[in-house]
Amino acid sequence: MSETRKRGRPVLAIDLGGTKIITAIVSNSGQMMAQERCLTLADEGPPSVINRLLSAVDYILSLKNMEPSQLDSISIAAAGGIELEQGLVTSSPHLPGWHNVPLRDIVKKKYRVVTFLLNDASAAALGEYRFGSGKGVNNLILLTVGTGIGGGIIINGRLYQGSSGSAGEIGHMTIDVNGPECTCGNIGCLETLVSGTTMAGEAKRRIAQGEKSSLLELVAGKLEDITAEEIGVAARGGDSLALDIITEAATYLGVGMVNLVNIFNPEMIVVGGGVAKLGELLLEPARRVVKERAFPVSAQAVRIVPARLGDEAGVYGAAVFALEQRN
Amino acid sequence: MSETRKRGRPVLAIDLGGTKIITAIVSNSGQMMAQERCLTLADEGPPSVINRLLSAVDYILSLKNMEPSQLDSISIAAAGGIELEQGLVTSSPHLPGWHNVPLRDIVKKKYRVVTFLLNDASAAALGEYRFGSGKGVNNLILLTVGTGIGGGIIINGRLYQGSSGSAGEIGHMTIDVNGPECTCGNIGCLETLVSGTTMAGEAKRRIAQGEKSSLLELVAGKLEDITAEEIGVAARGGDSLALDIITEAATYLGVGMVNLVNIFNPEMIVVGGGVAKLGELLLEPARRVVKERAFPVSAQAVRIVPARLGDEAGVYGAAVFALEQRN
Repeated sequence: MSETRKRGRPVLAIDLGGTKIITAIVSNSGQMMAQERCLTLADEGPPSVINRLLSAVDYILSLKNMEPSQLDSISIAAAGGIELEQGLVTSSPHLPGWHNVPLRDIVKKKYRVVTFLLNDASAAALGEYRFGSGKGVNNLILLTVGTGIGGGIIINGRLYQGSSGSAGEIGHMTIDVNGPECTCGNIGCLETLVSGTTMAGEAKRRIAQGEKSSLLELVAGKLEDITAEEIGVAARGGDSLALDIITEAATYLGVGMVNLVNIFNPEMIVVGGGVAKLGELLLEPARRVVKERAFPVSAQAVRIVPARLGDEAGVYGAAVFALEQRN
Repeated sequence: MSETRKRGRPVLAIDLGGTKIITAIVSNSGQMMAQERCLTLADEGPPSVINRLLSAVDYILSLKNMEPSQLDSISIAAAGGIELEQGLVTSSPHLPGWHNVPLRDIVKKKYRVVTFLLNDASAAALGEYRFGSGKGVNNLILLTVGTGIGGGIIINGRLYQGSSGSAGEIGHMTIDVNGPECTCGNIGCLETLVSGTTMAGEAKRRIAQGEKSSLLELVAGKLEDITAEEIGVAARGGDSLALDIITEAATYLGVGMVNLVNIFNPEMIVVGGGVAKLGELLLEPARRVVKERAFPVSAQAVRIVPARLGDEAGVYGAAVFALEQRN
């Protein structure tokens, strides 16, 4: 990499998600100086999404009257598998058509600035560790529960990315060896049992089979409009079907957490992502499973808490990642 | 701790297992200077086992004509849960009656030497990392497959013990959420599906149900004498029941490895312990599952290899642990 860092300057951070692209300019001390959002429109495929990402970078630079040369670096958190060395997005369930896309070098080539690429859940873990629920907690696991389940791992105060950058695929651990096939090719992954998609599917199935639920009114009879959000609203209103579905998902989530607690003995598990907005409805049953089943010393050591930075965790974390790199 | 280290001197390393106690004197550069073994006789309970351990220490010191004051430190790897701060063996499936035993301080008090205590699989991981299959491999997981399954984690070249010293309980991750209850209180743990005990039990059950196998001859008709070792012998002789049982266990082991590969993206998984003596009969089907089901980038990055140090991994690792501590 021929570009040299200009320390003390801000980082331009990007969170490339399946739904939206967030761009931000973050000062060298971690202050958010600007932030913009646009839709990813992922279905349009890689070239179109990459163009949109580059336009978003141009736009936020123009807003702040900045040139790329005034940046410390650019740092991209992407919703997919990452190959660190070459800076590739290897594949992604949320970005159709992305296979070994050299995103890091595409961006670097255009702006001639040192550029980093990491996984979005890894970035979110770093963000929560530096600025969110995990401040000062040196061993923590972040779980993002949304359409799927992502994970990020902080060990001894540093992001752990594994030997080639693809550590943290916590949603893809088998917890039901006789379970359904997952989109990833594995069997009975945690993600197949706990996700917004699974919960909505379960609600639709049970209502279609004749079970009563206020959910049907909430979506004005349109079963296909049920999402985890509506299930949360119905559950808070006392709907027993909705409560049942959340408790079932939370129990499976707890099983996944028991595995993490027994393997990592972490100080904290931080839960973010869209489904995590269910709050204590989701966390309380999961905590109970951990207390009942995990090794007592480890169960006592862990705090299971909601994430604090919402959808800004990724850009914060991408910026932190860049600022913590030595060169 | 008031004792001070005497750097450059040897470490007295102890591996306290459910079957035997190994004591060793290891030089400051990692050379094995002496090694002795005695039976644990774990059923006699903690006071008796502790006395035997202290006698073993006295004995190896006398063999080398050494005083405790000539040691750098004493380092104990114990087959159980560890609480780091207080130096407790919190519990152990292999050491009946051990609950919060302050083993570190018992030893330290007697010999007035800086004393360390860590989990035996953690120690074995360190041993294999420094002197065995994992030399120079900075991110590796050790699995010991025997009566149960233990685990040790090396991250960025250092042993990862978690926030209170009980990380690495890899045998106790749920892979079958509808599976049997485990002795640890969790459900469908990897250990309930893969272990010498499970394999022997399965062989006995199937033979008792009338299936034919050369195993019956191998144990002279005494079904209760079947162990993983005999199953290995029968399998190498082409016995289809034995091969079947090993392949089933290996497949489950592979499922556990997929979880580790997706979560850790390690460079290496090292497999040790008694059952690992089955060698490629066990490793080959497990590798196949990893290749089929894990994320491709991570599956390609990992080597799955047998451990090299046998039952000396624990004492080597205990010594390394002591030598790497700063104070």
